[in-house]
Amino acid sequence: METMKRNLGPVIGLYPTPVTVVGTESGGRANWMVIAHIGLIGRDSIMLSVRKTHYSNEAIMENKAASVNLIRSDMIKAADYAGMVSGKDEDKSDIFEYYHGTLKGAPLINNSPLSMECEVIDIYDTDTHSNYVLRVVNTYADEDVLDEAGNIDYEKVAPVLFEMPQGTYMSSGRSIGKCWDEGKGYEIKNR
Amino acid sequence: METMKRNLGPVIGLYPTPVTVVGTESGGRANWMVIAHIGLIGRDSIMLSVRKTHYSNEAIMENKAASVNLIRSDMIKAADYAGMVSGKDEDKSDIFEYYHGTLKGAPLINNSPLSMECEVIDIYDTDTHSNYVLRVVNTYADEDVLDEAGNIDYEKVAPVLFEMPQGTYMSSGRSIGKCWDEGKGYEIKNR
Repeated sequence: METMKRNLGPVIGLYPTPVTVVGTESGGRANWMVIAHIGLIGRDSIMLSVRKTHYSNEAIMENKAASVNLIRSDMIKAADYAGMVSGKDEDKSDIFEYYHGTLKGAPLINNSPLSMECEVIDIYDTDTHSNYVLRVVNTYADEDVLDEAGNIDYEKVAPVLFEMPQGTYMSSGRSIGKCWDEGKGYEIKNR
Repeated sequence: METMKRNLGPVIGLYPTPVTVVGTESGGRANWMVIAHIGLIGRDSIMLSVRKTHYSNEAIMENKAASVNLIRSDMIKAADYAGMVSGKDEDKSDIFEYYHGTLKGAPLINNSPLSMECEVIDIYDTDTHSNYVLRVVNTYADEDVLDEAGNIDYEKVAPVLFEMPQGTYMSSGRSIGKCWDEGKGYEIKNR
């Protein structure tokens, strides 16, 4: 082994991941929580890992719906504030201006470059977390984050990412290679 | 709504995510697959969404173990090659040099800045994908990606990320703010 390795124990080392502001509604009032413990399941579903103590759990199940909104760096202060205050204690509805798509209970953030409205199709339950499996129903993007073919360009979205254990917001970077292409003709060393 | 939004339909817009090279062993032979459809579940488990046709599915279950290795930009060509060739057709064991931690069947890549050895604790099954829920047993990091307190510094790890639908590898960026801090004293507009 060339490099010195240190065993850190059972630390999750799978960052950075996209910061999402998750929108729900309870009694017709919008609420927001910040979730970066996300997952992708197959090609049509996503997962949000939500601590069971979160106020938003009830709201998610009230409509079996939620929105998942990416944020840009100019939204960090508002999102971080939304993540520090509980909807139990404060009406957070006006932190973000929002609109609706086709689903009830999934408010979509105006300033988000990329928002998904989602239906809850299952919950993968663990001791401390409700892990919501969401089917993406519609995805709304700002025109200026799309390429000429109408596909999402993540260099233009420039979503804010998250990592633990430092607990920082990180910028996303640049495209540095093409998948299923860079490896063509690769020759394995010492073979 | 200030900006023009376009409805893209049910597109997963939750990128970029870390590219992982997942190590398994079958009959004592190492195999590698590339997975970026990952998830974080609570504080101790992760998920890998693996298409059921992948050769590695059998190997994962043979030992109920796998390694999850982040990659740096200098590993893109090798990882992309590993992702294009099936272990069904070719012996991929020597694409990466590896070592073992405490688990059988979870080969850890020497050149990876951050590797986890993991036990399979559950499978969340969907029509097309086996979504492996893995408990992280040990995490091995290069000394030079740790800060002075011994914590992982993701600016130093600089993991390669992935996005769809362009299908590119992306660099990760810089720390741009502190969580649970940036929002202090935030004042909501128009309140």
